[in-house]
Amino acid sequence: MSDNLVAEIISVGTELLLGEIVDTNATFLSTRLRDLGITVYRKSTVGDNLERLTETIKNALSRSDIAILGGGLGPTDDDMTREAIAAYVGEEPYVDEQLFKELKEKFAARKRPMPPNNAKQAWLIKSAETLPNPIGTAPGWFVKTNDKKIIITLPGPPHEMTRMWIEEVEPKLPVSSKCLYLKIIRTIGLGESFLTEKIAKYTNLAVPGVGTYCRDSGVDIRVAAVGDTIEEAEKIVTPVVEDICSILSGYVFGFDDDSIVSVIKKRLDEKNQTISCIESLTGGMLASQIAACEGISSCFKGSITSYTNEIKEFAGVNHETIEKYGAVSKETAIEMAQSVKKLFKTDWAISTTGVAGPGSLEGKRPGTAWVAVAGPKVVVTDFVDWPGSREMVRQRVCKTALNLIFKQL
Amino acid sequence: MSDNLVAEIISVGTELLLGEIVDTNATFLSTRLRDLGITVYRKSTVGDNLERLTETIKNALSRSDIAILGGGLGPTDDDMTREAIAAYVGEEPYVDEQLFKELKEKFAARKRPMPPNNAKQAWLIKSAETLPNPIGTAPGWFVKTNDKKIIITLPGPPHEMTRMWIEEVEPKLPVSSKCLYLKIIRTIGLGESFLTEKIAKYTNLAVPGVGTYCRDSGVDIRVAAVGDTIEEAEKIVTPVVEDICSILSGYVFGFDDDSIVSVIKKRLDEKNQTISCIESLTGGMLASQIAACEGISSCFKGSITSYTNEIKEFAGVNHETIEKYGAVSKETAIEMAQSVKKLFKTDWAISTTGVAGPGSLEGKRPGTAWVAVAGPKVVVTDFVDWPGSREMVRQRVCKTALNLIFKQL
Repeated sequence: MSDNLVAEIISVGTELLLGEIVDTNATFLSTRLRDLGITVYRKSTVGDNLERLTETIKNALSRSDIAILGGGLGPTDDDMTREAIAAYVGEEPYVDEQLFKELKEKFAARKRPMPPNNAKQAWLIKSAETLPNPIGTAPGWFVKTNDKKIIITLPGPPHEMTRMWIEEVEPKLPVSSKCLYLKIIRTIGLGESFLTEKIAKYTNLAVPGVGTYCRDSGVDIRVAAVGDTIEEAEKIVTPVVEDICSILSGYVFGFDDDSIVSVIKKRLDEKNQTISCIESLTGGMLASQIAACEGISSCFKGSITSYTNEIKEFAGVNHETIEKYGAVSKETAIEMAQSVKKLFKTDWAISTTGVAGPGSLEGKRPGTAWVAVAGPKVVVTDFVDWPGSREMVRQRVCKTALNLIFKQL
Repeated sequence: MSDNLVAEIISVGTELLLGEIVDTNATFLSTRLRDLGITVYRKSTVGDNLERLTETIKNALSRSDIAILGGGLGPTDDDMTREAIAAYVGEEPYVDEQLFKELKEKFAARKRPMPPNNAKQAWLIKSAETLPNPIGTAPGWFVKTNDKKIIITLPGPPHEMTRMWIEEVEPKLPVSSKCLYLKIIRTIGLGESFLTEKIAKYTNLAVPGVGTYCRDSGVDIRVAAVGDTIEEAEKIVTPVVEDICSILSGYVFGFDDDSIVSVIKKRLDEKNQTISCIESLTGGMLASQIAACEGISSCFKGSITSYTNEIKEFAGVNHETIEKYGAVSKETAIEMAQSVKKLFKTDWAISTTGVAGPGSLEGKRPGTAWVAVAGPKVVVTDFVDWPGSREMVRQRVCKTALNLIFKQL
């Protein structure tokens, strides 16, 4: 097969155009195609309209090898995907006896009568092969056109689509003769433009491809190359990854599926140490981000959200400290961390205190915050001063706090 | 203006084609355009590639009045959206002095040097008007072409894009001569298919349009109609909204921008009462969802994440209760709520305890959880038994807990 197969994803459904659902199918397909070494230059979304859908298939196949359609395989009149494919290849759909029999059996197994409409889900065209749907009523089609292009169509419900893609479609796909090797370097604490400047010598290379993108956690750097074997591709990627890591030393927290919390957990587990936190403005978000990590109970004991000064004092912060320096202060942040560390008997503790907004507090504007980390032998703090929406401020303070503890471990 | 404006959404970014992020921007834009009465027949996604991007703009405007581009406005060389628009309209970008000054000031306010790359974010073309970005460095463009089409471009980060769309773009859009009246009924506690069955007599009407869609909080019902005046449209919508509310009585928690937490806050404030919570499997997520509500400090005092039994006992749960019934039990949930209510001196308290997964706990499978609410005169509990991913389980338990307290108020 060709060295550079190109696919185009077409999501079908008026509900997608009305914003009623988020298109996670297209994201799933993109990831799978990337890992198969099949290039995607374009995705598109069209409604349940025969003319526009047929035109979209035509456009897609005029510039790609494979068109993948998701959705529009339901039993109702406004489900048009089968009709559009049939129109594109110029064939007449017919009811396939075997599919019709299986469909009737599915309804019987659910003890429901089969509405006459559903017969549509037993349609086939001459150049289509059936893609069985083990968990729904709509089978998919795998179509080979006269000019050796491929049209794949799958039902819209994500659990049906993803399963059929993996079990039925991937084994049928022409395999690219090239192998893709991909490494994602995950960083925290450096803005995208500064980071890009530091690694500028790599970001415009054709081989390996180096791209940066912002994530909630920080900036990810994607380094990828293709080769005749995976080892060959890896040999192109690895030295670049190593050099980028040394340029960005101190900002790289992990690779690929690592999260900042999974890395913190790993280091704490190695030392057999535990952690707790106490939050004011982040209000539980920091604990929630920590608790999102599988198996975190090995090191995370718990947290307090001290949304009032009374609860801060309950945790052990001195009344005088809050009185003298304010709730949003370095001093209070330090005492908060030290208090919960003692109260929950952990080796490490993180605290956050600040102004989430939209109003000011103690004369401090939204976006002002202190974070502190108390450890076995060290107390460190960081200051955040960056206005934004309530949600952004809370997110940014959590990121700062996780970065602060990460640097100590 | 025309009664039937057509817009096309173009999401820009190679990371979208690689499946690295889900495109929620396009969903947001679809909803807003729908509510403005602007029709969307197509959405598309292209990578950061000048040629393909320019071609996509051209195709979109060959069949639509408005092209809306999201993403590709970053400071780096692979951000190509400005270049593509300039190429399409045939104009040369220049650095706008005023924008450049503002950009430098933004970096100065954050006490950071401005990387030279960023000058790109002060670019303008002759036919573009600036769309200010109050929370980021990339302003948008509002371009009117010679043939009276509109090109809008906004930065990719969702919090920047959504805010700029609402504050800057919508007031500039040509208004349809018809008026749209829209009411969103927000429900909690009833699945979408059951809910749809109950209001089946409305879901297939042409006027008013009634749609249902799932949200994190529950199911929203959208009732909308157009008329020559807003009053005329409202007269069509209101009786249907009233009837739906009476059919779904007990499940409706609010309308439009209400959140379940904002409604809980309103009711607590009216009674001058306070609330706290204690979480096991949700690990801070419940507190974080509560604290996300502006002004919540009027009634929310704080929370404890008791990720270990030791912390549950610290909060006041009896060792014997955990021993006898297990940490994941109705009895422990009740004692947790009662303990934190007493400890934090609040009128109400919510607790969660269960198995987030992926592993089992105390022989209970992931998705098993108890929630309890202790109030001035009442203690109630609810049981959750619904497997799913760790994140889904945590979200579902938070929803159950908020619904439980909502029903008591």
